[in-house]
Amino acid sequence: MKASTASALLALSATGLYASADAASPNASTAALTVTPVGTAPSMNGAPENFTGHVRVEMLHVPTAPWRSSSASVTFEPGARTVWHTHPVGQTLIVTAGAGQVQRWGGPLESIRAGDVVWIPAGVKHWHGATATAAMTHIAITESLEGKAVDWLEPVTNEQIGR
Amino acid sequence: MKASTASALLALSATGLYASADAASPNASTAALTVTPVGTAPSMNGAPENFTGHVRVEMLHVPTAPWRSSSASVTFEPGARTVWHTHPVGQTLIVTAGAGQVQRWGGPLESIRAGDVVWIPAGVKHWHGATATAAMTHIAITESLEGKAVDWLEPVTNEQIGR
Repeated sequence: MKASTASALLALSATGLYASADAASPNASTAALTVTPVGTAPSMNGAPENFTGHVRVEMLHVPTAPWRSSSASVTFEPGARTVWHTHPVGQTLIVTAGAGQVQRWGGPLESIRAGDVVWIPAGVKHWHGATATAAMTHIAITESLEGKAVDWLEPVTNEQIGR
Repeated sequence: MKASTASALLALSATGLYASADAASPNASTAALTVTPVGTAPSMNGAPENFTGHVRVEMLHVPTAPWRSSSASVTFEPGARTVWHTHPVGQTLIVTAGAGQVQRWGGPLESIRAGDVVWIPAGVKHWHGATATAAMTHIAITESLEGKAVDWLEPVTNEQIGR
């Protein structure tokens, strides 16, 4: 588990391997409702190949079929951001703290702050993260299609975003 | 829009009617990412036939196919709760403020508080809401199946939950 990265968990989630591999997972059983107390979900650093800067990912819920959306709380330290990427089904971001930015390929830099909601449709190349000086946390809701929730692309350079 | 209830919105969401009916909806277009600033999403009272007590529902994201999960922030005043209900695909609750309770039919009363995550599998009869004396807010993530996200049942009586 310690060696797992957020991207690996996301990739595994739709296949059910995560739940199968960990019998103690609150998501392993569909027999009853489960309560995962605050502070007990695993916390990981975002994988360096998928994020620039320091990013902490807390998986809140990993899906088992027929449910297909994962939920994670993701915190970006100032300056931190995803690489460019797309989602095969899409992603909803609910900003829960701080201030950040989101941008689609070829589009304007858009500011986001606590309480804002971002919808990223399927196939839209984009990035999201903190501002240069403020941290940002969002809940990311991501649906999977045939075991895939995200396609990671190249890093976002400082030049591309005026930093 | 004012006459709409949370349940109506949830029922409409999977069919895309909500997006079609409101051209100004940030979810109406799938051409680019959309940012819905905090405070601009519609806020509604929970329908009396589906909730006991005062409940406020803020729809954060309404799905359009192939995306199928809606996101809503739901605030229960002290004592307020859902009626008994089931979900055809399931529901994830992320408690964002306060303290509440959740219970499956025939199961124990379980306490929930800010930061806890609840997973309700498909078909599990249950209710959730505030405690008798504290308010509770959660983000509800609900996937739809053939246009349906929830089946509402009978009210939760005070006797059933020791109030």
